[in-house]
Amino acid sequence: VRIAVDAMGGDHAPEQVVLGALDAARKGVDVQLVGDRDAIQSILEESSESGNLTLVHAPQVVGMSEAPTVALRRKKRSSIRVAMDLAAEGKVDAVVTLGNSGVALATGVRVLGASPGVDRPALASFLPTTQGRVLVLDLGASVECRPAHLNTFAVMGTVLAQAVLDKRKPRVGLLSNGTEPEKGTPALRKAWRLLDENPVVSFEGYVEANEVFSHRVDVVVCDGFVGNVFLKAVEGTFSFLGQTVRKEARRDPLGWTAGLLAKPALERVQKTVEYSEVGGALLLGVETPVLVGHGRSKRRAVESALHFAHRVAEASLAERISARLAHLEQGK
Amino acid sequence: VRIAVDAMGGDHAPEQVVLGALDAARKGVDVQLVGDRDAIQSILEESSESGNLTLVHAPQVVGMSEAPTVALRRKKRSSIRVAMDLAAEGKVDAVVTLGNSGVALATGVRVLGASPGVDRPALASFLPTTQGRVLVLDLGASVECRPAHLNTFAVMGTVLAQAVLDKRKPRVGLLSNGTEPEKGTPALRKAWRLLDENPVVSFEGYVEANEVFSHRVDVVVCDGFVGNVFLKAVEGTFSFLGQTVRKEARRDPLGWTAGLLAKPALERVQKTVEYSEVGGALLLGVETPVLVGHGRSKRRAVESALHFAHRVAEASLAERISARLAHLEQGK
Repeated sequence: VRIAVDAMGGDHAPEQVVLGALDAARKGVDVQLVGDRDAIQSILEESSESGNLTLVHAPQVVGMSEAPTVALRRKKRSSIRVAMDLAAEGKVDAVVTLGNSGVALATGVRVLGASPGVDRPALASFLPTTQGRVLVLDLGASVECRPAHLNTFAVMGTVLAQAVLDKRKPRVGLLSNGTEPEKGTPALRKAWRLLDENPVVSFEGYVEANEVFSHRVDVVVCDGFVGNVFLKAVEGTFSFLGQTVRKEARRDPLGWTAGLLAKPALERVQKTVEYSEVGGALLLGVETPVLVGHGRSKRRAVESALHFAHRVAEASLAERISARLAHLEQGK
Repeated sequence: VRIAVDAMGGDHAPEQVVLGALDAARKGVDVQLVGDRDAIQSILEESSESGNLTLVHAPQVVGMSEAPTVALRRKKRSSIRVAMDLAAEGKVDAVVTLGNSGVALATGVRVLGASPGVDRPALASFLPTTQGRVLVLDLGASVECRPAHLNTFAVMGTVLAQAVLDKRKPRVGLLSNGTEPEKGTPALRKAWRLLDENPVVSFEGYVEANEVFSHRVDVVVCDGFVGNVFLKAVEGTFSFLGQTVRKEARRDPLGWTAGLLAKPALERVQKTVEYSEVGGALLLGVETPVLVGHGRSKRRAVESALHFAHRVAEASLAERISARLAHLEQGK
């Protein structure tokens, strides 16, 4: 399998992206670096070359604040677009970008096309919990969802969790405002009934947002609006708590000393919760998986994103998702 | 103003509730303790009496896991119900409970009745941020909301923020999945238009869930489903991070020593983020405000809840909310 990397996307592009890609290539990942040839080559020349890494020129760059509609129309030779085109032509099996996530989503949906049986794409991410990782989708690709879309997300999440979490029967929950069946919106209550009869999914009913971290289920399904609020609430809380702890630690000498001593432990905490380590969010429901990493990712995070994308590409997610959905359709 | 306290609700009831009420009464809050006479009196006898504290007998108790519908039908002489009845009869100006929050909500809505002009009640809470507190509503009283309901919530939140945060013109934001006007659900986009034309509200557009903690606005408005997911995501993240930090600190001697040294700083962090200090969630849109505190609250948290309820009761929220809504209605 081969992975296309948008070398020009991200806060530290192209340098950190190219270096991370080089690290992954040295460990056997087949990488196509897409971006400005001169810029990439000047970074590559400083490092030793690798047979697993090839370069595809793309003269345009999409900025972090560009609108998806504008980028789609005017940036047809941008690194992200050329990477997606390679996927659409079957030349690569996954795309990795740390760039503008709205543009990545819109371009992926437009260029790659939907997998058979999938009406709406979903953005999925693995979050840390007290006992391993939990998969949450949709985190913002499909803002409004009908019950049938949530049912499809549950199938996609099941297939991804099987491939990545090595769970034979991942437990799936619907994100709601309580666990009793009478809770939730009418759309959620209808999705509950669909999931309850879905033979492809191990459905565990509703989960509440705080239960996500206690790992009561392996896969959490929600619409893209709710998922976006959930994810940003989690990120906001992490960042707020970090700031508060730092501020309070500075207020007395004991706290300051404690901060120094606790550094190794805090770095482990950071690593547990850092999204860059998790590998970003994955666009599912399109013919080629697209990994959208955090813009702030550096060399090591880029490398781990590439290993993750490699693993996902090997799992032939799109085919497996469509096979399950066809199986469901036949059962009706 | 006089406050009714459900003495039998909460993990540490009645003892900690009675003691906290006594502390508040000694500082001038006029308290009616509602619950089992004998149980309350045996606690009161151990302390010195206070002229500001009277006792109202209620023979029944509602358990933490009882269903609201059942409690409403079968527990008409429970402490929470009798406290609400006192409010409905105009004998108290606010109700405080640490008991079953679903029952408190349902009983409040049923017994107290809606304020003129209010279609749906909302549960509001003050959350800590890096720069003071932010008010978020609805946190779960009204799961599905039409745009007009969100507009009313914005008015209720404005009035509460004026009374409690001492802001003359509190900035109000709608919780959404992005800040651009084209983001959000159709209901949110319609609510945006209503709020933009609402002369009673200083509307700042959409806010994202992570921006809540950076205090870009003073009041965050959402429907009860989204608010519940938001609040529980925040609570789950707090608790997950706390567990992770403790686990990592135990893994090496430096971390362990650091933990001891950092204790004062960590306790200040805890105090900043603890909801018991904030005073719980307030049911708005009914004729008498109801404060629903955390079940785990102890003496000091109960006392601070009572001071907060006293302050809210003095502000005549219900009248002010109805006056603003009538003003809005006339403007049409």
